[in-house]
Amino acid sequence: MFFHRQELQFSATPERPDAIYARKLQEVLGGQYGEITVAMQYMFQAWNMHIPGKYRDLVFGIGAEEFGHVEMLATMIAQLLEKAPLGVTEDAVQDDPTVAAIVGGTDVQHAIVAGAGARPVDSNGNPWQGSYVTASGNLLADFTANANAEMQGRTQVARLYHMTDDPGVREMLSFLLARDTMHQNQWLRAIEQLKEDGLEELPVPSNFPQNKEHTPVSYQYLNFSDGEQAGDGPWAAGPSLDGNGEFSYHDGPTTSAPMPPPTRPDSRFYGTTELPNAVEKAAGAVQDKLGTE
Amino acid sequence: MFFHRQELQFSATPERPDAIYARKLQEVLGGQYGEITVAMQYMFQAWNMHIPGKYRDLVFGIGAEEFGHVEMLATMIAQLLEKAPLGVTEDAVQDDPTVAAIVGGTDVQHAIVAGAGARPVDSNGNPWQGSYVTASGNLLADFTANANAEMQGRTQVARLYHMTDDPGVREMLSFLLARDTMHQNQWLRAIEQLKEDGLEELPVPSNFPQNKEHTPVSYQYLNFSDGEQAGDGPWAAGPSLDGNGEFSYHDGPTTSAPMPPPTRPDSRFYGTTELPNAVEKAAGAVQDKLGTE
Amino acid sequence: MFFHRQELQFSATPERPDAIYARKLQEVLGGQYGEITVAMQYMFQAWNMHIPGKYRDLVFGIGAEEFGHVEMLATMIAQLLEKAPLGVTEDAVQDDPTVAAIVGGTDVQHAIVAGAGARPVDSNGNPWQGSYVTASGNLLADFTANANAEMQGRTQVARLYHMTDDPGVREMLSFLLARDTMHQNQWLRAIEQLKEDGLEELPVPSNFPQNKEHTPVSYQYLNFSDGEQAGDGPWAAGPSLDGNGEFSYHDGPTTSAPMPPPTRPDSRFYGTTELPNAVEKAAGAVQDKLGTE
Amino acid sequence: MFFHRQELQFSATPERPDAIYARKLQEVLGGQYGEITVAMQYMFQAWNMHIPGKYRDLVFGIGAEEFGHVEMLATMIAQLLEKAPLGVTEDAVQDDPTVAAIVGGTDVQHAIVAGAGARPVDSNGNPWQGSYVTASGNLLADFTANANAEMQGRTQVARLYHMTDDPGVREMLSFLLARDTMHQNQWLRAIEQLKEDGLEELPVPSNFPQNKEHTPVSYQYLNFSDGEQAGDGPWAAGPSLDGNGEFSYHDGPTTSAPMPPPTRPDSRFYGTTELPNAVEKAAGAVQDKLGTE
Amino acid sequence: MFFHRQELQFSATPERPDAIYARKLQEVLGGQYGEITVAMQYMFQAWNMHIPGKYRDLVFGIGAEEFGHVEMLATMIAQLLEKAPLGVTEDAVQDDPTVAAIVGGTDVQHAIVAGAGARPVDSNGNPWQGSYVTASGNLLADFTANANAEMQGRTQVARLYHMTDDPGVREMLSFLLARDTMHQNQWLRAIEQLKEDGLEELPVPSNFPQNKEHTPVSYQYLNFSDGEQAGDGPWAAGPSLDGNGEFSYHDGPTTSAPMPPPTRPDSRFYGTTELPNAVEKAAGAVQDKLGTE
Amino acid sequence: MFFHRQELQFSATPERPDAIYARKLQEVLGGQYGEITVAMQYMFQAWNMHIPGKYRDLVFGIGAEEFGHVEMLATMIAQLLEKAPLGVTEDAVQDDPTVAAIVGGTDVQHAIVAGAGARPVDSNGNPWQGSYVTASGNLLADFTANANAEMQGRTQVARLYHMTDDPGVREMLSFLLARDTMHQNQWLRAIEQLKEDGLEELPVPSNFPQNKEHTPVSYQYLNFSDGEQAGDGPWAAGPSLDGNGEFSYHDGPTTSAPMPPPTRPDSRFYGTTELPNAVEKAAGAVQDKLGTE
Repeated sequence: MFFHRQELQFSATPERPDAIYARKLQEVLGGQYGEITVAMQYMFQAWNMHIPGKYRDLVFGIGAEEFGHVEMLATMIAQLLEKAPLGVTEDAVQDDPTVAAIVGGTDVQHAIVAGAGARPVDSNGNPWQGSYVTASGNLLADFTANANAEMQGRTQVARLYHMTDDPGVREMLSFLLARDTMHQNQWLRAIEQLKEDGLEELPVPSNFPQNKEHTPVSYQYLNFSDGEQAGDGPWAAGPSLDGNGEFSYHDGPTTSAPMPPPTRPDSRFYGTTELPNAVEKAAGAVQDKLGTE
Repeated sequence: MFFHRQELQFSATPERPDAIYARKLQEVLGGQYGEITVAMQYMFQAWNMHIPGKYRDLVFGIGAEEFGHVEMLATMIAQLLEKAPLGVTEDAVQDDPTVAAIVGGTDVQHAIVAGAGARPVDSNGNPWQGSYVTASGNLLADFTANANAEMQGRTQVARLYHMTDDPGVREMLSFLLARDTMHQNQWLRAIEQLKEDGLEELPVPSNFPQNKEHTPVSYQYLNFSDGEQAGDGPWAAGPSLDGNGEFSYHDGPTTSAPMPPPTRPDSRFYGTTELPNAVEKAAGAVQDKLGTE
Repeated sequence: MFFHRQELQFSATPERPDAIYARKLQEVLGGQYGEITVAMQYMFQAWNMHIPGKYRDLVFGIGAEEFGHVEMLATMIAQLLEKAPLGVTEDAVQDDPTVAAIVGGTDVQHAIVAGAGARPVDSNGNPWQGSYVTASGNLLADFTANANAEMQGRTQVARLYHMTDDPGVREMLSFLLARDTMHQNQWLRAIEQLKEDGLEELPVPSNFPQNKEHTPVSYQYLNFSDGEQAGDGPWAAGPSLDGNGEFSYHDGPTTSAPMPPPTRPDSRFYGTTELPNAVEKAAGAVQDKLGTE
Repeated sequence: MFFHRQELQFSATPERPDAIYARKLQEVLGGQYGEITVAMQYMFQAWNMHIPGKYRDLVFGIGAEEFGHVEMLATMIAQLLEKAPLGVTEDAVQDDPTVAAIVGGTDVQHAIVAGAGARPVDSNGNPWQGSYVTASGNLLADFTANANAEMQGRTQVARLYHMTDDPGVREMLSFLLARDTMHQNQWLRAIEQLKEDGLEELPVPSNFPQNKEHTPVSYQYLNFSDGEQAGDGPWAAGPSLDGNGEFSYHDGPTTSAPMPPPTRPDSRFYGTTELPNAVEKAAGAVQDKLGTE
Repeated sequence: MFFHRQELQFSATPERPDAIYARKLQEVLGGQYGEITVAMQYMFQAWNMHIPGKYRDLVFGIGAEEFGHVEMLATMIAQLLEKAPLGVTEDAVQDDPTVAAIVGGTDVQHAIVAGAGARPVDSNGNPWQGSYVTASGNLLADFTANANAEMQGRTQVARLYHMTDDPGVREMLSFLLARDTMHQNQWLRAIEQLKEDGLEELPVPSNFPQNKEHTPVSYQYLNFSDGEQAGDGPWAAGPSLDGNGEFSYHDGPTTSAPMPPPTRPDSRFYGTTELPNAVEKAAGAVQDKLGTE
Repeated sequence: MFFHRQELQFSATPERPDAIYARKLQEVLGGQYGEITVAMQYMFQAWNMHIPGKYRDLVFGIGAEEFGHVEMLATMIAQLLEKAPLGVTEDAVQDDPTVAAIVGGTDVQHAIVAGAGARPVDSNGNPWQGSYVTASGNLLADFTANANAEMQGRTQVARLYHMTDDPGVREMLSFLLARDTMHQNQWLRAIEQLKEDGLEELPVPSNFPQNKEHTPVSYQYLNFSDGEQAGDGPWAAGPSLDGNGEFSYHDGPTTSAPMPPPTRPDSRFYGTTELPNAVEKAAGAVQDKLGTE
């Protein structure tokens, strides 16, 4: 169950209206790595988790915070839009092409659809979608997804920080940056703990029977491009990170197989085949007479 | 530039037709973490990369291989569909409700749209989409995304391994599993190397000026759920992984701010406000007479 | 801010596994009118609302409850999937085509992607999307959207009630049905209250200046089909519901205008025009020689 | 069957080109509540309707009109684009950054994809999609959806009215506003008639057996937020609108249930469980030797 | 304007219910090449067309017919669903796993969402979307798109013909097949006519100034794969179809250029660069002290 | 298998940064008819093809080239973005509203998400999607789709040519235009060859038994609009292009059928029917007592 309190976790009030910036903030509200994504992702991971206790408690605890970040951003966006020119005609504005041009750079749905309000979309107006969420049930994989989400998210917030001079906006962003710092640290620490607890190792999933894997290529770096320095990293020689093998470097594939012959499905799919059309047609005519399928 | 060779990297021939399994394989061809995703993701990362040399060579080299995996899966799917019942009526089949039922579990677009061929969609028929791709320009974030993709992908292939008895299919999957093992190892090793080369550290992005972050909450675990063991992990106490702070645990938020007053945008957006309707209407009537906007 | 408590609002435990039913339940979790939709919709309405007090409190209060319903459904789905056959091969199952057929009717991503867990998608596997949300800032319009959402949602839950015999599932559904009853009543009552408070009337938006509307057709029923009984309802004669007009009935349009002449955009868009190709080509040749655009 | 006449229902000719406004008009052509939505929605409702006669005639009659509104808008958009600067280079324009900026605010696909023509997308370029349509077969629910669609649509048209000074555009909008006034009135009147005819009542669906609903919570307002005035409305006390109960107000839930224990699906999904990895691995090794699944 | 008549263009009544087939028919109703696509595509082409007269009349005339085909299919689907088992529990059915399995192969949203009605989606439940439509303003390109749409559509209908034995369904399909035959013929004839009228030629767009094209490669077949027979067709030698050149065959590219050096954007995007982290950090520290961006 | 070489097929270097143009170029990279579409489309056609030899070699050969065009465009876009103002604040820029306005016209995700890099999206930021791909197995249909794709693509490139003055960009576009010229020619020549080889004819699919088509309407032009010149083209009279019939012209339909009666599905879908509510309710009450479904 979720309980809502009509307070924000941190101040989220701009000094000035700025509709273009409101549009940009939509990215970290409703984008691929926005707050809706992490809130939903952590919750689905918790609901699908197979072990009670500290890991699930961790995920629930962070997930619920993220819904509050969604709220902070939505509140901020509505305020940035409140007094901003959004294309409603005024003589003064109409005569000022610069203002008109700026209005053209806003999210026009902010005005037409939401009446100067926030929306569950990204900075290009693409609706948020459930396919942004990752929740596989494998915690090492999922916590890696979470670490990535916090890294991408913090990078986006850092970029947005440099796109405004508004102290109120920057204050809120400085808070989100700090929380992303914490959450990056937490997911990466949790990954270490999973290994220490013996719950999962590399490669993920670590319980898959080793003898069902085609091990000859498990530690070969097969370079399908012609970059000369591809073999210069520790990914091309030396022990593998999972401790199970030794890297080797190869220009191109070490295995190959002939391409299987083309398929020839049922003729009633009407794909093009080599059988001369005339023959096929004659067959069709016979078939017609017989009244079969 | 890309050059195509009409060979496969590994054998990809099933022993038996199996249209339901063909549908399932679509997940690792055209799903969120399928081969199209990693192929496109690595290529976009390479095209957007800001440094020449070993890292870019690495990404190009793996990316090009993944396009070959797309090909292996598409080829396999076409063969699995080739002789499988796909709903084309035959007296015998029509009378066998079990066969009819199995056909109902296939991807019907395999038959109707592709004429027994592979499609760029996932196992539920959702088209592959560009929003699956991550390429931010920050390599530590992106390689973490890559590690996650290979973990999710290998987990899905492992699951699919147990969903078939076909030795030909399993052989191909055992090869893909091995390559995913390698690629997980490579991305994680590359992350280590980035740190060793001094190019990036935690938290990502590490160059963002520390003094612009609201540091008091940078290492606080704020638990917004009521799980009792949330504080029992190394994410709640002790030094942070980035080496910059000390974790502390808190039930709920350590900060709060009153929710800002509701916004009151231009009345011509026709949002509902407290101003009594009658007043507003009177104003409208006056406005009408004056002939203004 | 949102606070999570690790309890459910109501019992959500099935008696038996049932993967096909788990798939069906996804509709009311992640579909157009599922619980994610209403939770997000009410929250965005609250964040965008222009008046403090009872209306906003109402919306916040119901919205937060709906997130708890998302949780109940996700929890239920994971349990329905827990022990259900999902396509992992077993000799026994493999030999039983009926079981195989049933498995074919499940959401295969439940198994391959989520490892037997819930997902933010509908019953056909379409990801939930932000475009399901309605939050215009006009409360009479939005509460009508809410009433509709609760009606559609309750209708879907009612249908789902008849698609299972599982007492545990039915118990949860009976709870959701009751809540939908309440919420339908609440949104419709709130619409009445908006009118009583003089905040909004019909037609929405009621503050739009009447003299800017082409009033001659404001109360005409123009029937563009040939149904003979179209004029038999109270929508074709008598006073209009908004109290501002009198309905009249018409076969087809009462106005018409000639279609404007086709547009003729810049020739550099290369649309096809009547100008003979030869002339255009000659012009192009001249242009080429002059070296202009 | 549909018959097309090469006339418009009303004049739709702008006085001046305006590509940015053309983009904005796309919202009411191809957006969530645009004319394509209502045209398709009403038609699908008619095709799925279970009763002949006046209700179906009504829906067919309005639906066919809406296709004509799609045509009016598409025609208008093409004209607004016809002579507008759309980014095709001209020396004069190239030197004028203001014009360049305005062009940046247009829908660039209008130029690149459609050659200065209308498109089936919204004002942010999101393609129209079938998931905007509601047609459940329950007429009280569906007519409520229709009333909402006309309210949202009229609100958007009203906003767009204030975003242009072009008399030609405004004339067309004044016509659409009037038709939305009519259609709001019609759907709400039809809802009343459904009740009078005894076909449907509140709560929808009214035929669902009352004894299958968990009635103790059917009229409880459970406030999951902390707004102090939530209980001040007629939705918190007094008789319910459906006449079947009495509202009561509660801070938070009146029921709760412990969260069920985490699920533990088949180990071959490779979700993370508490079973120590070592044990699982040993089991795997044994399994490997036995050569089973 | 569109006028609707409550008649169908041809009989559309099945002999038996068949929910799985209803799902399949959705493909040609709401799929990529379904009737909604061609109806909308032709109409948008007409609305965007730059020449009055026979071409526009042709497009309007066919487009309006296609809306009637949408209606035929929707009507058929509703009837196929009317008495079919759709998962509503009955003791008898519940005990029959075969029936249960068949139900699992239906479009579950047909039951849950539409109450046994048609929907604007394809056979996998993907909503129809505006991005299926092609209307560029260039008639030779667009009529080629139309010819393709009718070919793909007729192929799908032909496949569907073999997936049912129901005489009523087959009768309707035989009608649609005939209309697709006609429309294929019409679009291809119209393409010829465009050329005869001198309005457009190959290559499309034919008015683009030849001297702005890099003509040395305009007629080279560059084979980037290693198929040995690629050069055996008339596409590799002999005169080009547009009459402007002579084909030549080449293994691989005839031109190449070095890859440009990697980009190095503003450091405030926090992409990873070669500049040692330490240096960048020092710079950041200085910047911090100075209080600049 | 695919092998990558770190060279471009042609020079792709702009002279000046131009972020708005970078956004526009996304259309031909990741749009409906962009290079990703043709690359993926041709490859899926090859993988699904039923005949070995020259046709498949042709498709593989062109498809692999197109991936190189994706690379050229991505490389170009990154360079156009490299030094362009993208909204990162600078005092000078902040004070210049024109620059701010131009920035508002860029793809803001280029900056926020990709850190000044290319993305797999179109010029409005819509992610590329698998539903752009056509690969039916019928080569005459698919090659027509390919011809259309190259026509639409070349038209878009031609438009983009006129939207920039940058010689470097234009040089790359002149190359792409030439390749599109070649590929249009190739697909159309391949269509001719298919017919010459007797593999496929008109109407597609040509093997479908003629006697299963409702031939009376196979060559009738049924005009559902009122355009007076619709019958003036060679599509309304004379021999059909497929050589099998004679065109005839008709105002409106030559056939019609009464609309079937409305469906009446199971009452447990709670659709609205004529049966008086009271009766239904009574039935429900009885049912409740009996304890059945």
